[in-house]
Amino acid sequence: MAAPAYSFRVNYAMRNIRLLIQYDGTAYSGWQSQPDAATIQGLLEGCLKKITGEDISVIAAGRTDAGVHALGQVACLRTSSGMAPDVLRNALDALLPVDIRIMRADEADESFHARFSARSKSYVYIISTDRIIAPFLHRYVWRLPYNLDIAAMKESIPYFDGTHDFSAFRGSGCGARTAVRTIIKSSLEAYGSFDFMVFRLSGNFIKVRFEGDAFLRHMVRNMVGTLVEVGRGRIKPSDIEIIMKGLDRRCAGPTAPACGLFLENITY
Amino acid sequence: MAAPAYSFRVNYAMRNIRLLIQYDGTAYSGWQSQPDAATIQGLLEGCLKKITGEDISVIAAGRTDAGVHALGQVACLRTSSGMAPDVLRNALDALLPVDIRIMRADEADESFHARFSARSKSYVYIISTDRIIAPFLHRYVWRLPYNLDIAAMKESIPYFDGTHDFSAFRGSGCGARTAVRTIIKSSLEAYGSFDFMVFRLSGNFIKVRFEGDAFLRHMVRNMVGTLVEVGRGRIKPSDIEIIMKGLDRRCAGPTAPACGLFLENITY
Repeated sequence: MAAPAYSFRVNYAMRNIRLLIQYDGTAYSGWQSQPDAATIQGLLEGCLKKITGEDISVIAAGRTDAGVHALGQVACLRTSSGMAPDVLRNALDALLPVDIRIMRADEADESFHARFSARSKSYVYIISTDRIIAPFLHRYVWRLPYNLDIAAMKESIPYFDGTHDFSAFRGSGCGARTAVRTIIKSSLEAYGSFDFMVFRLSGNFIKVRFEGDAFLRHMVRNMVGTLVEVGRGRIKPSDIEIIMKGLDRRCAGPTAPACGLFLENITY
Repeated sequence: MAAPAYSFRVNYAMRNIRLLIQYDGTAYSGWQSQPDAATIQGLLEGCLKKITGEDISVIAAGRTDAGVHALGQVACLRTSSGMAPDVLRNALDALLPVDIRIMRADEADESFHARFSARSKSYVYIISTDRIIAPFLHRYVWRLPYNLDIAAMKESIPYFDGTHDFSAFRGSGCGARTAVRTIIKSSLEAYGSFDFMVFRLSGNFIKVRFEGDAFLRHMVRNMVGTLVEVGRGRIKPSDIEIIMKGLDRRCAGPTAPACGLFLENITY
């Protein structure tokens, strides 16, 4: 495995700062820096350069794809700046666009690494099954105006739990060495109404949540796409087990769109 | 008073259609058609022309300003098209941008007029008092990261209730014949957390709600701006009564920004 961009042979005179980040991913080409594309990492590093004068690499717990949102992304960075974490947070928030917010900045132990120290991550996926969706929410759901069989989808959920080779749900271009991952907890719930700030609105939503030790590229979106195949009656709940064991991406469902996916929380 | 654009001398062979509309006003120059500006009315009338071939005027209950949102805007239109309301609704939703949604379309009595038949309207205004606001919500609140005196703001609310000459809260350019309006019910509540779809997020919000027979231009935003002056300790709750009786716009607070305002509901 190649050395990570963020090396452990750090200068220990440098401080380690931990960030808690929320973003609306709609306008961005994902977390990871890319030439000629607006990315969360790229914008953050550009702002840090302006604030500290340093070339700082920001490492995230989860490298979210284009269009994916984050409620609880965690990142770490090394700096020799003496700025208090709150001052750095305020400076970042002042420079960043309003759809990327630094919720907290804290001094971290020198051993803390946003990705390698993570014990588990959780992702939430939201499906709207209504024909008409409130104009405030279209950025945050997969619109599937069909009668999905919720009971069958719920029955499918336990097949994902536990340690498996998730090759069947692995996106192309995934660079992970092994496809073995552990889903610690998964759930699927249907809602008939929801709150949008102070407003209670009616609407039919399905919330799918996966908590795991780590995730492969597109893994959550491929699992959700396969659950929807169950919901539409094209495959049976028990087919999930067969698909999992087949290790063949072509046998699983399509990749659910990015807009419905939220990186919810990282546990250390 | 000049004859309304929508005349009562209608062709009674024409059907009267009532629409329930939601929109995120962020991208629009308000309800009312304007040359060279994207407006809700302008877009709707353009879509209706494409669907029916007719030049149709759409009349709304509340002509919201640029940037103001609607949860329950009601509008009416006359058409000689034989299209079922649901088919028209679907056609409109297919042509309209996703931040304008037609929630319902119904056949209405020939006497129904979205504005003149309305018995009352309610508006909700949302203030966020946090330094950091979730990136999903910045379009929908007035960001005031201060310690506002909620108790004093609550104490101010009853001064708005009842029938008054609201000249002190009337925006410039308001074309109404009289500034006498009746506030039927008003409220102010503080929240320490809120739901964003399936997520419970922490955050400090103030929700101000006014229900009235009708509203003058900028009236809600001027009342909210004045409430914030109370919250910041610049004026006392009882000063609201003095300001109201003074009938002088210059004595009231500033106009709160459009982004925090929602047209909530129209009662017929």
